[in-house]
Amino acid sequence: MSQPPIQPRTLKGFRDFLPGPMLRREHLIDTAKRVFRSYGYSPIDTPALEHSDILLGKGSDETDKQLYRFDDAGGRDVAMRFDLTVPLARFMAQHAGTLGAPFKRYHVGPVWRGENTQRGRFREFLQSDFDTIGTKSIVADIETGLVIQDLFTALGFEAFTIRLNNRKILTGFLDHLDLTGQATAVLRALDKLPKVGREAVTAELEAEADVSASQADEILRLAALEGGNDDVMETLESLSASSETGTTGVGELRQVLEGMAAAGVPAGRVMVDVSIARGLDYYTGTVFETFLDALPDIGSCCSGGRYDDLASLYTKQRFPGVGASLGVDRLLAAMDELELGTRRETAASVLVVYFEEDRRDDYLALATRLRRGGLDVEMYPEPRKIGTQLKYADRRGHRLAVIAGEQEWSAGTVQVKDLASGESVEVPAADAADTCHRLLET
Amino acid sequence: MSQPPIQPRTLKGFRDFLPGPMLRREHLIDTAKRVFRSYGYSPIDTPALEHSDILLGKGSDETDKQLYRFDDAGGRDVAMRFDLTVPLARFMAQHAGTLGAPFKRYHVGPVWRGENTQRGRFREFLQSDFDTIGTKSIVADIETGLVIQDLFTALGFEAFTIRLNNRKILTGFLDHLDLTGQATAVLRALDKLPKVGREAVTAELEAEADVSASQADEILRLAALEGGNDDVMETLESLSASSETGTTGVGELRQVLEGMAAAGVPAGRVMVDVSIARGLDYYTGTVFETFLDALPDIGSCCSGGRYDDLASLYTKQRFPGVGASLGVDRLLAAMDELELGTRRETAASVLVVYFEEDRRDDYLALATRLRRGGLDVEMYPEPRKIGTQLKYADRRGHRLAVIAGEQEWSAGTVQVKDLASGESVEVPAADAADTCHRLLET
Repeated sequence: MSQPPIQPRTLKGFRDFLPGPMLRREHLIDTAKRVFRSYGYSPIDTPALEHSDILLGKGSDETDKQLYRFDDAGGRDVAMRFDLTVPLARFMAQHAGTLGAPFKRYHVGPVWRGENTQRGRFREFLQSDFDTIGTKSIVADIETGLVIQDLFTALGFEAFTIRLNNRKILTGFLDHLDLTGQATAVLRALDKLPKVGREAVTAELEAEADVSASQADEILRLAALEGGNDDVMETLESLSASSETGTTGVGELRQVLEGMAAAGVPAGRVMVDVSIARGLDYYTGTVFETFLDALPDIGSCCSGGRYDDLASLYTKQRFPGVGASLGVDRLLAAMDELELGTRRETAASVLVVYFEEDRRDDYLALATRLRRGGLDVEMYPEPRKIGTQLKYADRRGHRLAVIAGEQEWSAGTVQVKDLASGESVEVPAADAADTCHRLLET
Repeated sequence: MSQPPIQPRTLKGFRDFLPGPMLRREHLIDTAKRVFRSYGYSPIDTPALEHSDILLGKGSDETDKQLYRFDDAGGRDVAMRFDLTVPLARFMAQHAGTLGAPFKRYHVGPVWRGENTQRGRFREFLQSDFDTIGTKSIVADIETGLVIQDLFTALGFEAFTIRLNNRKILTGFLDHLDLTGQATAVLRALDKLPKVGREAVTAELEAEADVSASQADEILRLAALEGGNDDVMETLESLSASSETGTTGVGELRQVLEGMAAAGVPAGRVMVDVSIARGLDYYTGTVFETFLDALPDIGSCCSGGRYDDLASLYTKQRFPGVGASLGVDRLLAAMDELELGTRRETAASVLVVYFEEDRRDDYLALATRLRRGGLDVEMYPEPRKIGTQLKYADRRGHRLAVIAGEQEWSAGTVQVKDLASGESVEVPAADAADTCHRLLET
């Protein structure tokens, strides 16, 4: 080792996950998968690398610029995926015959974007998407909302709001105002409403969307409707009465509200919010955003909606669908902030202390017995002082220590020590697993 | 859509995972994670992309050639990780102060190698590694074997053999024969023993390792020892008596055998096999390979061992450790071959049939009730003919269909249909979840 070592470091915008944060990420993802599966969404996976033309097809100029793109050793023009939607579109076009319809999938995996890290963005992050493809049924829209409800509840969030809209309402309203051609510019302006406020949006509508002052006023009257869902729905019905598209949108919105209520979503959880636009032309019907009441500033933690046409760049078949994407990093930050989920830095809740060197095989047998009793058990690998091992347990966040010395080995007992309270109980070794379970439950 | 669509396709050597194979992969990985955690291994993650010098540091010429390496948009020389060991070494060097010792981690993630696909290799595949770092205690070696035992058992394999060796035995023997300098060439020749047989290995030992005929004979007498563990251990003890290193190796081997037996590993599961070398200079003590008795030709499905020095390219600190890596693709192929694990193509075991269009919200409430009862439930999203929906369930592999028509809605009952037997029972809607659980257990 005369050579100086290579400096250990990660790339800018890329992260190592140490055990504590990673245990919390795995808890989030496992919970999400359990909820997805409980609705019949099945897992899929696609490659990290794709032919560049596949990924460039649908992306915006901004995502194209952020692409990690290079020539591989075989001279192929390849790139790392920047989201899970474009790979899903390619996947559906390629495998639709095998998959059949309806097709419900979830997909959890990393994506890569050469983001400007000064904006606090990461260049590698995990996405977690779920979608129902190949059906226009409103049942799939309703279930998307139910997944959000079940998932946020399972993660321990108590106060959150699912904001719900239907893009057809605004589309119909703009048709009625003879502003169909300006829809994209209007949506772009409206997207800024929460950030810049009414006046700035009015100014942008007039300047960029070629909208008159009275039209801008009518659009904002619609988009900024506030109040209880019943009042808002009533107003929307009357404002959309003259447009078939708008009326359809209001009807769909009502079906989603009613279906979610029928499936047990509590009153007040879902809020109709016509200002939610979610991008410019991909979504065509129901749209969702999900906000944590305690942390509104972190933005939507789960967003999505209905689209008519997932994969037309890769096939002549039409794939309508509906789905949403979790904001994994935002949710993890929120769970940290709200102290939800485990604070442990290690996987096992029980530490078997090992200090009688000659008893190594007995400690191994004890740890095995506890594991067979359904516990996650770490055995300290070296016969050190008990104090050293308890300090280790304290630092790692084990909850219980199981301790046996010569006296306990002779008596066939063990000490089970609750590391939070410091209290110990001596129990027969055969009862140790039950005692641990009891203490872990309190 | 006048433009012709982009041909949907994946890169050579890269794979899409459809729901069936992906459900099996998730089952494998979830099972592995559960076993890792039950021993106190905690999860970590590292980036897919690293600075190239980090990855080039330790790799062989072959892995260097296979690296996906490129300049990113900021002009950095970067590469995609080709295994999880080099990132672990970099990770330990960077975070040792925070992590402390001993440190037990597992890591599951994709790696990329520009392999020759004609040899049936994939260019992207999942690795799943577990390691204990920062202790030389034999407990960590024993636990590595116990994890293999528990994991293969949990996956449903009934007949498998963990082949066990200790590299010090051969090292000591070569010292004794004055062949210390030829160790690498000897190991390279011995690695081929199962494939090419004794004679070819003897020829290579003489030609490449500068070993005399009688020395080659002695080496092969050691490496090709066969018989029960007791006999083999006895012979090894006498053959190693003159070498301190060899005697240490035999002693460690015995401790691993005894510790695994004490922790309940059945007799006959572990077989001492001195021919196992596992690479040329990384491993320094215990080595493991794991073979399925029914499918010996697919090779070792979990391999690993003890090393003295994980991270010396990145730090002056020494990190000894022991661990192993699952052969994820091999295990999945074996589970398919042996028909272990689920054959389903969908996540949910229950399909709620939806055919009375006006009852949509009632079906949604029924599906919710079943989910609250702990079932994974898909509701068919469109009000189609029952026959169409049952055909869908058959193709997807749902096990039960829950059916309610006007008659059942009026009576407050549902039909639960076992799709394998074709038999139905009518039960009160309130009992439907219990009935489903009962039928799923049979």
